[in-house]
Parts: sequence; C-alpha cells; structure tokens
Amino acid sequence: MHNSHLSIVLGFALLLLTSASKAEPAKQTARYSLQSPDQQLALQLEVKPEGLFYSVNYAGRPVVMPSRLGLKIKGQAALGSGLKVVQTREREYNQDWQQPWGEQQTINEHYRELRVELAETGAKPRQLTLAIRAFNDGIGLRYEVPAQANLQEFVIEDELTEFVLAENSHTWWLPAYRNWGPEYQYLRSALSSVDVAFTPITLEARHYALAIHEAALVNYASMTLRLVNDNTKTLKVDLVPWPNGDKVRTAAPMQSPWRTIQVAPKAIDLLNSHLTLNLNEAPAPENLKADNSYIKPGKYMGIWWEMHIGEKDWSPGPKQGATTARAKEYIDFAAQHDISGILIEGWNKGWEGEWWQRKPTFIFDKPVDGLDLEEVTRYARDKGVEIIGHHETAAGVTYYEQQMDAAFGYYEKLGIHSVKMGYVGTRIDGDQWHHGQYMVNHFQRVVDTAARHKVMVNAHETVTDTGLRRTYPNLMTRECVRGMEYNGGSPDTGNMPDHTTIIPFTRGLSGPIDFTPGIFNFDYKKHRPYNRVPSTLANQLALYVVIYSPLQMVADLPENYAGHPAFQFIDDVPTDWKQSRALQGEIGEYLVIARQDKHSPDWYLGAITNQDARKLEVKLDFLAPKARYEAQIYRDGKDADWETNPEAYEIKRINVTAKSTLELDLKPGGGTAVRFKQR
Amino acid sequence: MHNSHLSIVLGFALLLLTSASKAEPAKQTARYSLQSPDQQLALQLEVKPEGLFYSVNYAGRPVVMPSRLGLKIKGQAALGSGLKVVQTREREYNQDWQQPWGEQQTINEHYRELRVELAETGAKPRQLTLAIRAFNDGIGLRYEVPAQANLQEFVIEDELTEFVLAENSHTWWLPAYRNWGPEYQYLRSALSSVDVAFTPITLEARHYALAIHEAALVNYASMTLRLVNDNTKTLKVDLVPWPNGDKVRTAAPMQSPWRTIQVAPKAIDLLNSHLTLNLNEAPAPENLKADNSYIKPGKYMGIWWEMHIGEKDWSPGPKQGATTARAKEYIDFAAQHDISGILIEGWNKGWEGEWWQRKPTFIFDKPVDGLDLEEVTRYARDKGVEIIGHHETAAGVTYYEQQMDAAFGYYEKLGIHSVKMGYVGTRIDGDQWHHGQYMVNHFQRVVDTAARHKVMVNAHETVTDTGLRRTYPNLMTRECVRGMEYNGGSPDTGNMPDHTTIIPFTRGLSGPIDFTPGIFNFDYKKHRPYNRVPSTLANQLALYVVIYSPLQMVADLPENYAGHPAFQFIDDVPTDWKQSRALQGEIGEYLVIARQDKHSPDWYLGAITNQDARKLEVKLDFLAPKARYEAQIYRDGKDADWETNPEAYEIKRINVTAKSTLELDLKPGGGTAVRFKQR
Repeated sequence: MHNSHLSIVLGFALLLLTSASKAEPAKQTARYSLQSPDQQLALQLEVKPEGLFYSVNYAGRPVVMPSRLGLKIKGQAALGSGLKVVQTREREYNQDWQQPWGEQQTINEHYRELRVELAETGAKPRQLTLAIRAFNDGIGLRYEVPAQANLQEFVIEDELTEFVLAENSHTWWLPAYRNWGPEYQYLRSALSSVDVAFTPITLEARHYALAIHEAALVNYASMTLRLVNDNTKTLKVDLVPWPNGDKVRTAAPMQSPWRTIQVAPKAIDLLNSHLTLNLNEAPAPENLKADNSYIKPGKYMGIWWEMHIGEKDWSPGPKQGATTARAKEYIDFAAQHDISGILIEGWNKGWEGEWWQRKPTFIFDKPVDGLDLEEVTRYARDKGVEIIGHHETAAGVTYYEQQMDAAFGYYEKLGIHSVKMGYVGTRIDGDQWHHGQYMVNHFQRVVDTAARHKVMVNAHETVTDTGLRRTYPNLMTRECVRGMEYNGGSPDTGNMPDHTTIIPFTRGLSGPIDFTPGIFNFDYKKHRPYNRVPSTLANQLALYVVIYSPLQMVADLPENYAGHPAFQFIDDVPTDWKQSRALQGEIGEYLVIARQDKHSPDWYLGAITNQDARKLEVKLDFLAPKARYEAQIYRDGKDADWETNPEAYEIKRINVTAKSTLELDLKPGGGTAVRFKQR
Repeated sequence: MHNSHLSIVLGFALLLLTSASKAEPAKQTARYSLQSPDQQLALQLEVKPEGLFYSVNYAGRPVVMPSRLGLKIKGQAALGSGLKVVQTREREYNQDWQQPWGEQQTINEHYRELRVELAETGAKPRQLTLAIRAFNDGIGLRYEVPAQANLQEFVIEDELTEFVLAENSHTWWLPAYRNWGPEYQYLRSALSSVDVAFTPITLEARHYALAIHEAALVNYASMTLRLVNDNTKTLKVDLVPWPNGDKVRTAAPMQSPWRTIQVAPKAIDLLNSHLTLNLNEAPAPENLKADNSYIKPGKYMGIWWEMHIGEKDWSPGPKQGATTARAKEYIDFAAQHDISGILIEGWNKGWEGEWWQRKPTFIFDKPVDGLDLEEVTRYARDKGVEIIGHHETAAGVTYYEQQMDAAFGYYEKLGIHSVKMGYVGTRIDGDQWHHGQYMVNHFQRVVDTAARHKVMVNAHETVTDTGLRRTYPNLMTRECVRGMEYNGGSPDTGNMPDHTTIIPFTRGLSGPIDFTPGIFNFDYKKHRPYNRVPSTLANQLALYVVIYSPLQMVADLPENYAGHPAFQFIDDVPTDWKQSRALQGEIGEYLVIARQDKHSPDWYLGAITNQDARKLEVKLDFLAPKARYEAQIYRDGKDADWETNPEAYEIKRINVTAKSTLELDLKPGGGTAVRFKQR
C-alpha cells in the first residue's frame, strides 16, 4: 500500500534532462548544483571516490558545509563511496494545490529538482539514486534504492547523512532517547552542546534561522540527530533502532523519508513555510474518490481535565470520570456552543488500577460499567454532537492490533468518526522505542484502518509528524509535545510560561499540535497544590490561534465555562483556515499569528508572551484592503499576571481597517486574542 | 593531612547548647529549624522513622521542599532512616577573615550552625552527624561519620541527598559524564529538562535565584546532580564513581564536602556571595608559619596561543613552539610591561606526535631540544620575570605521580614558582572520570607536593573548584571551563558571543577561572578559517575585570600587542583586589563588575554584552565618596561588531566622582573596560 509513494513523479513535467555524464570516471570529483527558484538557496553535490557530499548556501553565505551522504547496509560496505554517476535529471515544478482542511487552503509547491542516479564501479555493483529538491524556503533530499540484482532485501545499519553546520548557533532542541519521547520542555544551547536530539531542531544563526526535520516518514525509522565527536558543529542522522540495533528493515525498491532543511531570514519566517507538506505526496487517486465527508475539523471537549487535576479517575470506582450522566453534561454544553465532539476517556473496560504500569488489559469494544455508550452516542447525535472515541494502548501495540479492526468497526457502527489514540509508556511492547520503524509501521496501519472505517485520527505519544496528513487526510493532529496535561496532573512539574512561545517554532514546524488549550479555572489546588497553568486567561484564548490544530480541544470543565463572557471567543474561533500568517515573534519570548477563517471573511489573531510583560504594535495590513472590521479584543486585565492574577481580562471592541495598527499590552504569561469581524 | 579539616570548630565560640533530646523516640518526627542571621533563609530538618528530610525557605517562600538526606553504605542498609537524635548543638559565628590574595580582601563569615548527632536505634547501631550552617547568602550542609565501633572502613555506594526544588525554574547547566568534562557551552532549560549536571548549577526562579554546589571537596567524589524520575523538579546527588561503581572509599571518622545552596534575590547577587570560601577551612597553622612569599598573583604570557591558531606545534619539529629564541621574545616583552610570568608549553621531552591520543611519554625534568630552560630561566630572572612551569599529563596520573616530586623539585631548583597543569584526555588513566575520588585525591597530592616545593598551581582539566584555595593558598586558579582555546584551535567550534556572559554566573561561582583573555588580533584565518574570537577588542579588555583569576593570562602573541595603545589597560589592570562588586547583569545577556585594586585607591570596571548591542547606565557610587578620579575608558568603536569589525575601539578620558553615572554603549559582542585612577 505504501508503494503509492513511488508514484511521486506522476503528473510532473520533465523540464530538463541534463546531458548525462554516463561515463563519469570514479577517480574524479563530479560536481552538481541546484538552486531554488528564487536562487537564494543553492545546493552543491560532490560525487567523490571516497563518498558523496553536499553543501548548502543561503544568500551567499554557507549554511551547511560539505557533509557526507550514504547508507550503511548491514553485512555490506557502505553504499555511498566508489560511485559513478549514471544519469542526472533536473526539472522545475510549480503548481498550487488545495488542502482539504488546514492552516492554509492553497499552497504553492515550487521547486527545482535534481535526480542523480549512481552505481558502484566494482564487481556486483549496487545502485543508489539521490533526489534533491530546492524550494525557496528549504531543501529536501532523499535516498532511493531502485530494484536491482545486487541489493534486494536488506537492513540499514546506519544512515550516514550529516549536517556540518557552518555556524555554532543558538539551538532549540529536545533530547531523544529519554523515557517520555518529546514530552519535555525545550533546551536552548549552542549547537556544540547538543547531544542527541529529536527533529525538528531549530537553529538561530546571526544571519538566518534554520530547522532540520524529515518529510514523508513511511516504512523507515524516525530520524534523530546526534552531535558527532562532542563539541563540534556536525549533526549526524541517528535512526531510532529496533531492539537488536537494526535501523531499517527493508527491500528494494525503497526510498528514505526526505531530509529537510528549512532556511529563512528569521525564526518567525520558518512558521510561514510549507516545506514539509510540499515534500509529501498527494492522496492516492482511490483515496480522493472515497467518501471523505466524515473528515471535519472542529472543537471538542471531554472527560479528561478532571482526571488530570485529580477530581476524577480514569479507573472504575467511586471517582470514575466516565459516566453516562457526566457525558450528557458535556453534550448539553457542547450542543449550545460550537463544539462538535465529546471525548470520554476511560470509557471502556480495562482501566482498573495502575493501567500504565502493566501489560494492557483494555477492551476496545466494551464500555465500562456506568457508561452507556450507545445511549450517550444517541443522545449526542440527537443534539448535533458527535462522540469522539478513545484508544489508550498503554504502549501495548501487539495487544492493540489484535483488536484494532474490530475496535474501529465498533466505532463505525456507532457513528463515531474521530478517535484519540494514546501510547502512554516508556517503551512500545516492552522493548521498542516510540520512534522506531516498528511504531512507524504500526501507526501507518492505524491510519489506514481508521480510514477504512471512516475515522479521523488524533494520536498522542506517537511518532513525530512528517506531513503525512497531505497523503492521509484522516490523519488530523497529534500530541508529541509536553501539553497542557503537565500543568494539571504531572507529578510535580508544570510547563513554564515560555513553553508555548517555544513550541510553535520547534515541534510546531512538523504539523498540528493537540496541545489542549482553554483552561479558565486556575484554582485547582485541592488535589494539585503545586501545579499551575502558567498563563493568563487571555493567553489561553490566544493559544487557539497561535497553536494550530484542526481538532482543537476546549480543555476545561463545562461548569468553568458556563456563563463566562470570554468563552465567546472559543465559541467563535474556527479550526479550519483560509490562510495563516506568522507576523512577529522570537523563540521563547513572544509570538503573534493571524489566520483567516476558511468559511468567512473574518480574521483572528493570537498573541502570547513568556514570563515577561511586553508591548507590541501589530500592523493590520493582512486584512482585506477596503473592508471594515470590528476588532473584538480579549486582552489581559490591568493587573493580570499568570502567577498572581491569571483570571483578569477585559473585552474591548474597536473598529479597524487594514491601515490600522493594533497596540498589544501583554502581561506576564499573558496574551491577546482578537476576532476581526467584517462589518 | 586532610584531617586538618576536622579542626573546623577550633576557635569558635560555642554559643548555645540546646537541651539535647537524648531519649527522642524513633517512632515520632523530630523537627529542628535553623535561620540565617538575617532570618531571610530558614532551614527545617525532620528526623522521621523513614528518613531524614530538610527543606529551605527564603523570604517566606519555599525554595527546597522536604528533601531526603542520607548515605547508602555498600553491603549495608542506608544510613539515614531509623535514627534517633542523640544530641543537638546550635551556635552562631561571626568573624571577618583576610584572604592572602583574592577578589575580596576581607570576608565576613557569619552563620548560625546546627549540629544534629544521630544514632540508629536497632542492634549494632551506627552514628551519623549532620552539620548545617545558615548564612545570609546560603546554606551549607554536610555529613560527618564519627569514629565508631560499627562503621570503620566502608564504601559509599550512593549519597541520598536530594534537592526537591519548589519551582520549575530556568536552569543553566552543563551535562556531566560527557567526554570533555565541563568544557561545553552552557545549556539553558526548564529544571524539568535537566538530565545530569555538573555543579555549580544556577537556577533563576521568578522571585529568587539560586545555585547549588559543594564546598571543601577532600577525599570524596565530586557531586553531580541528576534529575530524579525524568521531568520532575527533584535533583539528586550523583557522585562520580570509580570504575567499579563505588562512589567513595573511606573510613570513619570522615566528613562529606558541604552541599551548598546559594540564594539571592537576583542572579547578579549570587556573584557577590562568598559562601563557598566561607565553608572552607583556614590554612593549617603550620602552613601559615611557612614562607609563602612565593605566592603572588600576577599576569602571564606564554608560548601557547600560537599553537592553538596553528602557527606552531607543541611537538618537536619544524613548527616547534618552545624554543629559546621565542621564549626570550616573550621575556623581553614581559619585562617592559606588568607581566610577571612566561609559560612555555611543549618545553619538555615527550610531546612527539599525537601525544593526547596515547599513553603519556612526557619527561618532566628534561627540556626539549631547542629550548635551553636553564638559560631561559636565567635570562628571565635577570629581567625580573619568572618562568612558569608546565606539566601536561595527558590524563596519565599514575605515570605522572612517579615523576611528580622530582618534577616539582626540578622547578624549585630552577627558581620556578608557578606551574600550569593539564589533564587532556577523556578519562584519567584510561578508566577514571576526571571528577571521581581518584582524581580528587591525586589533585590534592599535586597541591601538597607543589606547596612543599614552593610552587603555585594553575590546573586545567582538573576537578571542580570547591573553594579549597582558602585552605591551600598555593592553589591559585584553574580552567574547568570552555576557555579561549576553543576560539583558536578546537577542530571547528568556537565559543558563542554569549558564553562569557554566562560563565561568571555558573562556573565562576566556584572560584577563579583561567579563561585566558586578551586576544587583540582577530585575523588568524590562515590556519583556522572557520574559527573566531566572538568578541570585540574592548570586550577582551573587560574580561580582565569580569572574569576573576589571580593568575590572568595575556593570551595573544607579543607582536600583536607591541605598540598597541589599548595594551595600556592590560598593563594597568591588577590581578589582586581589595574588593569586588557585581553591579548589573543577566545570565547570557550582559554583566558589569567593578573591583578595587588591592594596592592603590584605583577602581576598575568591566562590562560585556552578548551578541546584542545594548546601552547601560552605571552609577559610580562604589568610588570613594570624596575622591576625584580620571576614568580611562576603553570602549567599542562606533562600528564595532565582533563579526565584522572587532578591532574598532576608542580610548576616552573623563573626570568622574562617586556621584557620576557612566553611560555604556556596548556593540554586538562588545564591552567596555575602565580604569578609575584617583587624581
């Protein structure tokens, strides 16, 4: 099924076939270069007897110095040296495409491509093709191993790809191979102090910003980046292994994910790039023909936060959260507002006791005593609301896969079209990393199975996003971040106030984040005396714009929203956008983003700051030139402060046009949320 | 010899002997509290049946939540639970003491102390004493194991001390257990993202700053701090082990180093604390009677930077740096300036080839061919300059110790009174960490042997400073930081411009740093095309004030200083101070420090910034109230910039008094250095 990826060149015009240097002698260096359409980015490839090397320049400055490429095949010599160039092809592609849903409806895909087909010169030569694409906003590069006599089934023992960065830059990174995947707060250090990091990794050099990540991760291991030789500027790909050390078990023909380098003048510009999506394939034609009407962005609430703040339990018993009566309270609230889904965690059998510490016992088609799921689903449907399913696996993938098809079939039968997945645990099936090929392939099966049963996927603790939502439009959003839950129920550490000003510049570059904003009640000390939501109420509102997710949780309890004037913003804010613009921001300091509703002329703006108060001026030139708008402003109150007075906010209405400038006054941990309603 | 530490209570007034609760039943919690003299800091100790716990408050806010204390003895139960209180003693001590040399001549030592003598309640009871001191600027806490029948020779398998921090703060830290000790650029992250860190570790909470470190590390392993249970706020002591996992091999009576918690309103205030020194002992009386006239702070130059920038080699051969002629050039320059010592790296036999990659072959009393050390020493002496010895061990301690006494004897004979040590390598003797007990004890032997031969010690790649210079006044300075050398010869990464604005707040809290400032020639691209000194010339001058070291290198080549007007500041700046004041600063941003010369009424000021230009106002109220001064100002030129124009500087002279305000205009990577010469 994933061979649909091999169709990626279909429909592209072959603009240029270079005079192929077919008899390239292996004893000399062959050089090829590729420029982005705007000529600001330039990649040079060197095929040397001792190996393949690439380098990247941006606006005339070196960004990546000559860096090795290649694959180490288990039991064989490295595939990357002693190669001759068989053929090169170059072409340019430029076309707009439409997202069925997303942060930007129309995306321009414009790149120049260089394909270099290589073959070894010795006995039993093996073949390798490099595909390189240069966009104005970054580079993509991948390995393709064509079908061939001398390389059929094989194991990739190591991917040799390096990134020899030209500058020792400030680097924002998350360590890989810790217990909780990417659920940490980001580290900032010199590049030379990195150890081994997840991607995206974001670097701020003096004259440009860049982010390294991957696109279209299918049937391969996730990429992490390890500093080579301690204290250098060289990052090397470190694929997340199988328990025996294998990195990728595969067979020709195959291709690696794209290795991507986003480059922009400033970090804020990285947020306006669509490189990752552009390096994923369009959906297969049969998928496009299918009935995808079940795929709908929207807001959801759920029985969830009350567990995190210790009011309720996931487990059956006196504090059981999942009950018919409580679910109906959520449904009643949702029905009165623009909330399309209700999640019920702990809805099924098998949550008894410390479920995250043992082999999983969940039963995925049997509701827990006390919750009548059929009744709840019917009640919801009658009120125009849908129930959201929940599959917590406790990282037991083998156990889950035995029930998976039946589980999604059960939801399909009930008319449930959305599921939240969870893989809570330090290892998958006891000995697999959450980011290895084993989990990559499992999660692909989840997405495919869900699609067959017409279910949207919102996955927590799963593999990193690499833009596959373009190809699989039911793959809506995922967590893969230290989310709101840490401010509630984590044993003793909440997120710091700067956390939400960092993640859009890092984790956010990979795709939608189910961060679950919207906490209005900051006093939940009864069970969590040392935890806090480190933001003001206006900051919580702004997160609905700042952090993109097509499924956006409205995370607090209905009784904390009921009658609250500020809830109007959550009611109004869309989850599907015509266009998005990251306007201002510095990593870890502040961020201002504007987005236009897909279904109206209205714009929305979110602005957040870290622990420091700050004033900002925002030009409203993104608004339609001749239109008039009412700006409905939800901002921090005069004495608002995440620590001492988080609830203080005020609502102000002013008339503005595209020529106006908005003055923002953000308090510590604060924010501003604005709806620009066209008049 | 180190038993001199046990004399620490001598000379103290025993102010208070609490009514000892001798029959304390072990089944109840016994609580004790101790306040700092100004009552801002409060420590509470709880002796519970299940263990010992302490907590710390500052200005009424929790800083450390109840945190475990105790020692795990190999082959025995943990020493820390099931204890009864045998006796408690409380006292207050308040006395000034004089440093023979230092950043501050007179230091006030004022603390309240609580000693809690504990004994187990079961059969074969063991005894443990906790000593706790509360100063206005921090807490010290240590374990004492008195001589006893049931605990004689023993191995500490684990020290149980925890620091359960009350807030998830911004933390500046260096990872421990990497290859190059503390020679990395600092990481900044949430506390909850720390892995395992060297000390000092510096935390910035909203309402206070704190640093955790240790004092008086003798015959014990260095402390690192490991985050307990990933993603928490709890740091636990992780002692650097012997190869077999033992932490400390010891015998009663013994005592641990002090575990120290510095607390202050802001990070800048941490720099004005003398907690670490105050928790070290005064020199033993016999040491004070000795002729210590050889111990003299001063500036030194040396054949060193030319190796780092690739002009010369440490090894014999055509690029050999250590030659008689070159040494005399340095001596000639030093003789004309206030430079008291000349270092000659590679002076001895055994540096051939890749010396850092093999077992050491150095001979410590045989000069290399081409260098006549006797002649050079005589030539220097005639000109009033001293040669500084050099012992590079390439981390071969066993090999070095065989020659150590003879090596220092050789220097003593030549009249050499200062030695720079080096332990370049990833492990000591192949399998020992640089920070384990093995190295701690070796380095103590070095200091003792050096003292016996009247030699001052400046050690690189050695154990962390814990304030032992108070007890051993020939222990002058050490590196233990990513120094200037990384801007020259490290394979490919220099320090970033913010590095020097971080290290005084972190590494600098432990003691003097031989950072080796003073580079004037920023163009050394011939051999190091990708390396840079990331600062302006004025910043280099300011470092002589900002970074304290009693032996301060003048690191560039004499020909790069000759005739340079800005060298006057280096000539003038002292290395021994009457008093020091950290005036302004934020970690990683900027720092302004003023120090008064010990031997004149003059003051000096150093101000540095990171990559960002900034303007600062400095009140000169540290100057003597009625005196008049000429401020000799060395500042960045109008277009100065570490990257594009590092040499641009200007010298300005203005008259000022204690009522004046100095306006600083720091350029990117820039600085200002000022001498306030009393008129």
